Amino acid sequence: MTEEMTYAIQDDYPNDLAYCYGCGRLNKEGHLFRTGWDGDQTVTWHTPDDVYTAIPGFVYGGLIASMVDCHGTGSASLALHRKNGYEPGEGKEASRFVTASLNVDYIKPTPQNTPLKAIGKPEEVHPKKFKVHTEVYAGDELCAKAVVTAAVMPDTFTQPT
Amino acid sequence: MTEEMTYAIQDDYPNDLAYCYGCGRLNKEGHLFRTGWDGDQTVTWHTPDDVYTAIPGFVYGGLIASMVDCHGTGSASLALHRKNGYEPGEGKEASRFVTASLNVDYIKPTPQNTPLKAIGKPEEVHPKKFKVHTEVYAGDELCAKAVVTAAVMPDTFTQPT
Repeated sequence: MTEEMTYAIQDDYPNDLAYCYGCGRLNKEGHLFRTGWDGDQTVTWHTPDDVYTAIPGFVYGGLIASMVDCHGTGSASLALHRKNGYEPGEGKEASRFVTASLNVDYIKPTPQNTPLKAIGKPEEVHPKKFKVHTEVYAGDELCAKAVVTAAVMPDTFTQPT
Repeated sequence: MTEEMTYAIQDDYPNDLAYCYGCGRLNKEGHLFRTGWDGDQTVTWHTPDDVYTAIPGFVYGGLIASMVDCHGTGSASLALHRKNGYEPGEGKEASRFVTASLNVDYIKPTPQNTPLKAIGKPEEVHPKKFKVHTEVYAGDELCAKAVVTAAVMPDTFTQPT
């Protein structure tokens, strides 16, 4: 697994649900996070732009939270897709998940100008809900640990109340 | 308390620690979050730009996590500043905090084009560490609840390893 992600689940999100600032392939101003399988683990690579600083030299924690968030929903979608018999890149629309909860422990300051790798393990806790356990590395350094609980997007999410 | 925040703790961060993408007053490309007191509660107002979408019509969860993150470190700084006898706007440098952990429960989808208000209660758990309990409202709607644990920035944070 390199920084290139050939098949990402975000490529298979329905068009109208592909505008997420974090991971929507149609939101060109966003981060364009892409999440795929590496064996039975999920992976998202990202090298943040310099503007995403906490203090100069270190990555902004909100960027890491954002990466973990979309990695979590993407991992949940990957897991449900595989459970249904599909892999990303096969042209089958994937289920879109939303985040129910996001927990991030910042282990150590995250250096800038270093590719970040989020590695996740999705765990089914309900047929429509997954808990994704994630570690974020900068090079070999474990910088953050996170747990995201993601649920299949409810119909109520499709129109503002 | 209106959307105008006259005295924000971020105005009193040291110059070299005021480049945070979320709340650094010197990072003009960032969100420029500003956090101040409303009685014994802390408040951050923010209306996200349209680009920060989850799906069209709703705010990106990573933006909410970012807002809560900086609101948390700002609230901790406000609390320590007050404990030391100071209020923002008095020209006394405030302590800069970093996030140890960030927990966000997304209660309901957050509508766009609506001012968001984070309201926090800082709780001292150690002389250099505060737990900040926060609620995020869009208008009258409670959209997210969060707990941030923030610690005074260690010296090791000032240079990349």
